[in-house]
Amino acid sequence: MNLMNLKGTFDFLPKEQVLRNKIINILRTNFEKYGYLPLETPILNYYDLLAYKYDSNAEILSEIYKLTDQGNRNLGLRYDLTVPFCKVIGMSKDLRLPFRRYEIGKVFRNGPVKLGRTREFYQCDVDVVGIDNRMIEAEQILMAINIYKELGIDVLVKYNNRKLMSGLIKEVGISEKLVSQTIGIIDKLEKISKEELVKNLKDIGLNGNEITKLLSYFEYEFNDYIKEFQDTSNEDIKEGLEELKELNSYLEGLDIISSCKFTPTLARGLTIYTGVVFEFYDKEGRISSAIGGGGRYNKIITDFMNNGNSYPAIGLSFGFEPIYVILNEETEEESLIDLYLVPLDTNLECLKLADKLRKNGLRVLVEMNKKKVGKCFEYAEHENINYISIIGSQEIESQVVRIKNMKTKEETELNFTEIVNFFKKM
Amino acid sequence: MNLMNLKGTFDFLPKEQVLRNKIINILRTNFEKYGYLPLETPILNYYDLLAYKYDSNAEILSEIYKLTDQGNRNLGLRYDLTVPFCKVIGMSKDLRLPFRRYEIGKVFRNGPVKLGRTREFYQCDVDVVGIDNRMIEAEQILMAINIYKELGIDVLVKYNNRKLMSGLIKEVGISEKLVSQTIGIIDKLEKISKEELVKNLKDIGLNGNEITKLLSYFEYEFNDYIKEFQDTSNEDIKEGLEELKELNSYLEGLDIISSCKFTPTLARGLTIYTGVVFEFYDKEGRISSAIGGGGRYNKIITDFMNNGNSYPAIGLSFGFEPIYVILNEETEEESLIDLYLVPLDTNLECLKLADKLRKNGLRVLVEMNKKKVGKCFEYAEHENINYISIIGSQEIESQVVRIKNMKTKEETELNFTEIVNFFKKM
Repeated sequence: MNLMNLKGTFDFLPKEQVLRNKIINILRTNFEKYGYLPLETPILNYYDLLAYKYDSNAEILSEIYKLTDQGNRNLGLRYDLTVPFCKVIGMSKDLRLPFRRYEIGKVFRNGPVKLGRTREFYQCDVDVVGIDNRMIEAEQILMAINIYKELGIDVLVKYNNRKLMSGLIKEVGISEKLVSQTIGIIDKLEKISKEELVKNLKDIGLNGNEITKLLSYFEYEFNDYIKEFQDTSNEDIKEGLEELKELNSYLEGLDIISSCKFTPTLARGLTIYTGVVFEFYDKEGRISSAIGGGGRYNKIITDFMNNGNSYPAIGLSFGFEPIYVILNEETEEESLIDLYLVPLDTNLECLKLADKLRKNGLRVLVEMNKKKVGKCFEYAEHENINYISIIGSQEIESQVVRIKNMKTKEETELNFTEIVNFFKKM
Repeated sequence: MNLMNLKGTFDFLPKEQVLRNKIINILRTNFEKYGYLPLETPILNYYDLLAYKYDSNAEILSEIYKLTDQGNRNLGLRYDLTVPFCKVIGMSKDLRLPFRRYEIGKVFRNGPVKLGRTREFYQCDVDVVGIDNRMIEAEQILMAINIYKELGIDVLVKYNNRKLMSGLIKEVGISEKLVSQTIGIIDKLEKISKEELVKNLKDIGLNGNEITKLLSYFEYEFNDYIKEFQDTSNEDIKEGLEELKELNSYLEGLDIISSCKFTPTLARGLTIYTGVVFEFYDKEGRISSAIGGGGRYNKIITDFMNNGNSYPAIGLSFGFEPIYVILNEETEEESLIDLYLVPLDTNLECLKLADKLRKNGLRVLVEMNKKKVGKCFEYAEHENINYISIIGSQEIESQVVRIKNMKTKEETELNFTEIVNFFKKM
């Protein structure tokens, strides 16, 4: 049998997985400090639920893994964490708003495998439903900056407001039905050449004047918009600018404005966004695309619930896989075993000693295969073990061991009772 | 749209998920103390890999969720963590034995939903390949007892040796080809009546004498076997008893024998086991079936690798879902928010204060919807928040806040700089 993984799926061996668990721990702990609580939803879902918010010919639907169960029900594997979030809100009768949750879990995409786009990968989503103001927008951006910093990544936050963008497009005279296609093209402005951009805009039916006017708008600084549109009757522009002014005042007050860059061309692709949008970029450019992002989406849950109430929401997604890629490059391989005990006819005593040490927090491995001492040193080296100690009957009697640092080769003599402290000091 | 989960799948809301994460943390931390390292394998696999170790008509195969991808490959969702473990050993060229790993992950079963048997659930497996002796058996049992204790569950460990069991069956004269069926029936001895048992044994073709003799064997104490078979030429019985004696000496030496009960009828169903088997039971009987178990399986990886080398292995599985059920009954709902700040026109200042507190480890929620103070108290009660504090401009100026304990209604006046310490002291 030819052993292999499906393309776009991966095994994570211990030295990789330790880092992945560490990243998840940092994310989780911080989310909870900001009042976001853990939610876990199933991977298997009714297909109809997954497809609910899309037209039946939407591209995403072709990427849902479909299957049936023994009862011939049509099922699918979730492809994001937003639909399950909506479902929980719909199903939980005694949920009090605002409801803040995070979910870290696997999603599945039956599509082409590209860099950073695999068949099965983690999403880390942090959302709140029930708040509609710039205070939460600012807090989410602050949270993201802090978390990335704790992970060792300084981020630049690009931000914009989708109302401003739609407003500008309408201001030029482009018809309502072309707005979302135009947004899709403008969103790529930083990734394609100006010629391509103009061609794309022409292709969807914009004329030369419209294009020139539109592109000139996207060269403005924030204050240019304020000046030009101070008396505008364009509601989208007006609201967009109001919201951005409010957000800016928080970003300044929180002293994070220098990590943020107003970016009028930023749309964040997806059509679900209705207000502020933001994306996080590694300042060192180790990965050039966004390593996280989010924004306000006031319609999606409201439409999903369809009960006459309004469910304003905002959320952000940490790019777990790109974060892992960046940190994996930089992180020195960590030792996962503090002490390796090699018994010489002292099996039981070593098991007992090991257990005492573990109860005090140490990670201890006991040799059980009666390997020769030389082989044990080789194994310790290969497994990146910190310290090794050979335990014969003399050590048991005297209650004194010599432990050897595998890197420095330094040896230390310790009484049994001193071992825990020795490791705690490090 | 009728919002519902597929039968046998569940949403875990925050107050449940917090406990689940806590259990996983305790498991993970302890596994690593014993030198087991984290591994993560994909959920999506080639169907052929999942089916590899079974006959094409094996029951488990009908419970694999099957699907195809856009390239029309035959895939399946993993139904256990053992096959992926075997695969990793086969694919990782520079793996050094012994290799200890744990994996905590979801598995899927397209079968009938029963209590404790759902469509998608967590398995927590801890295995080592490359050690074949009783020292590791004893250490795994010790680890399990310690971990369950830390979780708050005192366990009784039932244990046996499959060699002894097969040996006894052969000793009675039952033919080789009926051994595994007989084991399957004996394994149920504690769950069915004696009449049923006898009937089941007759049904597979045993005669009255064989049955009487066999059942009498299973009423022995351990020392009865030792006496009766001290000079036996039955190799299975001999080896089984040798191994059990060795294991007993470790269990005594480690002072855990009083939590262990030799149980000659224990087989652990699955045919993969080749030596020591054990199961863990809640001493308080809150769940009557096993809440974990494991044993030695020396053939499965050896057969899978099929390269002439031998891959002795032993592993145990913690029943995450039953552990969760037991603890969920007993655990008082924990507060997930330390402090809820309600700004009265002090939005920015509250965001700043909250962030300082979070950087010192507190979990802080900031009110953002300008709810009336009375509504905020209601929300705090509903959300089980520990402390609430109303922050007006006076509090900001004086840098002194009153925080109110939501349970005792006690109020405390604190300087901004004292808040962190106040919470740390608790």
